[in-house]
Amino acid sequence: MPILTDISTLYTCKLDGGQDEVHPIIGATIAWEDETIQWVGSARDAPAGLDTAMQYSADGQVVVPGLVDCHTHIGFGGWREDEFEQRIKGAGYLEIAEAGGGIQKTVRQTREATNEDLTTHCLAVLEEMVRLGVTTVECKSGYGLSEEAELQMLRIYMSLKELQPVRLVSTFLGAHVIPPEYSDDRAGYVSLLCDTLIPQIQEDDLATFCDVFVEEGAFSGEEAEKILRSAQDAGMQSKLHADQLSDGGGGALAARLGAISADHLEYTSTAGIDTMADAGVVGVCLPFASLYLNQQPMQGRKFVRAGVRLAVATDFNPGSAPSYHLPLAMMLACTMSRFTPAEALKGATIHAALALGLESSVGSIEKGKRADFAILDVSDVNHWMYHFRSNACTRTFIGGIPQD
Amino acid sequence: MPILTDISTLYTCKLDGGQDEVHPIIGATIAWEDETIQWVGSARDAPAGLDTAMQYSADGQVVVPGLVDCHTHIGFGGWREDEFEQRIKGAGYLEIAEAGGGIQKTVRQTREATNEDLTTHCLAVLEEMVRLGVTTVECKSGYGLSEEAELQMLRIYMSLKELQPVRLVSTFLGAHVIPPEYSDDRAGYVSLLCDTLIPQIQEDDLATFCDVFVEEGAFSGEEAEKILRSAQDAGMQSKLHADQLSDGGGGALAARLGAISADHLEYTSTAGIDTMADAGVVGVCLPFASLYLNQQPMQGRKFVRAGVRLAVATDFNPGSAPSYHLPLAMMLACTMSRFTPAEALKGATIHAALALGLESSVGSIEKGKRADFAILDVSDVNHWMYHFRSNACTRTFIGGIPQD
Repeated sequence: MPILTDISTLYTCKLDGGQDEVHPIIGATIAWEDETIQWVGSARDAPAGLDTAMQYSADGQVVVPGLVDCHTHIGFGGWREDEFEQRIKGAGYLEIAEAGGGIQKTVRQTREATNEDLTTHCLAVLEEMVRLGVTTVECKSGYGLSEEAELQMLRIYMSLKELQPVRLVSTFLGAHVIPPEYSDDRAGYVSLLCDTLIPQIQEDDLATFCDVFVEEGAFSGEEAEKILRSAQDAGMQSKLHADQLSDGGGGALAARLGAISADHLEYTSTAGIDTMADAGVVGVCLPFASLYLNQQPMQGRKFVRAGVRLAVATDFNPGSAPSYHLPLAMMLACTMSRFTPAEALKGATIHAALALGLESSVGSIEKGKRADFAILDVSDVNHWMYHFRSNACTRTFIGGIPQD
Repeated sequence: MPILTDISTLYTCKLDGGQDEVHPIIGATIAWEDETIQWVGSARDAPAGLDTAMQYSADGQVVVPGLVDCHTHIGFGGWREDEFEQRIKGAGYLEIAEAGGGIQKTVRQTREATNEDLTTHCLAVLEEMVRLGVTTVECKSGYGLSEEAELQMLRIYMSLKELQPVRLVSTFLGAHVIPPEYSDDRAGYVSLLCDTLIPQIQEDDLATFCDVFVEEGAFSGEEAEKILRSAQDAGMQSKLHADQLSDGGGGALAARLGAISADHLEYTSTAGIDTMADAGVVGVCLPFASLYLNQQPMQGRKFVRAGVRLAVATDFNPGSAPSYHLPLAMMLACTMSRFTPAEALKGATIHAALALGLESSVGSIEKGKRADFAILDVSDVNHWMYHFRSNACTRTFIGGIPQD
């Protein structure tokens, strides 16, 4: 049975307990068979017979579960670095949109990209993510916004599962914004989503989740409810982009719809937070979006106090969050949204898995789970989050296999 | 003559023009002899005879001047990751200080460290900085705060110049805080600085600059003036930690004292900014400190509009800025302090050199300057700052020598 030894501290990140309980084991060993963990514990308690020819050493470094990036938009064509400069010079969202920029620009560039372009782009991103210790990634559609282009992106995500090792979870975000073809027919676009796309996605089993961007300029709460109810009938669980730029009651809507997560939450009211806590909706903190848009960050401590389980993700996309560096997003969750380092770690592991319904297979290092972990050249989780370096991850395992 | 060819865009970063004028050359070549640049221009204008056996290729990537980190505190013993967590949980500056933390903790740990400990620590940091494209670093004392320990740190910085390739510039920051031995005798400590340490530093030529932390809990404007006048008499130019946590008139004081730079400037008034512009004081933006302390960032656009030349630096230290990742500091200058990417680039090159009085030798790629440059795997400066990755630098040259 392959084993990993000489671990200074193993943060198992089991689900029990509060946001900051990451259940460390000092001087740990992990053993696995095929891709499943068989034994985890203190090295001195290790049963005889673990020590085999397939012995890996953590060289006295720290081990954490493979990180889970539970909110990304990795599939897109083109970039928008010009808008980054324009926003700094004072251009507003509307001004950029009217000049042909914003999400609609990425929609045009994504529609123009070939299957091969999009696949190559995603493979390069996923390879870099693995180097950072990431082993599970949620991927949203939402830059196609036509029947053909949305299905194409979801099919690319399916094909990527065969082409590389990161575990991918697909989310249908046809309800990202209203595409130009439907600018005068919102109801028509909502019908396209509910009556054409969702049934097709169900038939081909192309997505686990359905997500809606609830915001002025995107979709209303009523539209979101209609779309997500249709998706639920088709077997997809709900997610929501909620309260990012204003308090649109998104947290409460997520609770009412039984969504698995509500993401962003920069402006969620105290009442909304309490409703999320009661309903067990995972709150997903996306610090890059606040940083890049120069907006107020999500108020992490309010959510922790209310008992909402929090995840942290990159939101990687070419507009508001053009970085896939999850450890930096975690550091920003600490500095901007006031997560403690342990809270950020739980947020990028088991709570992120919870936001994807994968808490029984990934996100923690326990018997029966996938052997996904990252070895970090740090002394502990506080030092990792505090002393930001390019990349503290020295090796990533997926399904027990080192990714070198 | 060695040459570097196949440069997609060379940002020469010459001093002329505004903060955002970085003077790019498309399709450039650089040639140097020993460590000095002999020719820079468009490859098609290159004179015959440049093309020699020592030909390096930028592989179609971007080249920028070696980055200049003009404000760091790299010489310290121990870390303070525990305080990072405590601050997030709500502990205030005073509470941490009263429990034995804060700068005084680093002073204790630095005094306890051996010469070898401090040297090893600095060498490791400088090596990582080079990988990020940094070739010149200012290093402050200020964690010794006794005659012996301050001189020791400055002597270590001198010895580091022989041990590794990064160009180092030393700054005496004996006036960081009042050490515990002088807590009831501020005047006595100011005398120690003015009458003992400054003359000794002059005699042994241990520092180019003298810096004072002007802030409640550190030093008053009057004390700063006394110390910096003494240092000026001893041939050291002035720098100031100014207006970081409150508007203490530090910008204006820097102007009055003819300081080469005023650093931090989060709370500087409009009048203070104008005074700095008139006096030609370089303003140094330190975004990590604002991020890690969860304080308001420096208002970059106000300074640019007023015509202050701005630099960007890491402020690397174990309390308020525990990262030496200068490209991330530049990205944060863009996102938090609203520098455009070109403005941040000028801020980490020629304007940072200006803040060190080194503008005639480093900080830009021009004939007669040191052959210090970084090759970046990016399409342009906007994309570099916008799409944050672990490290976009693929190779760093110092004095014409690739640092691999």
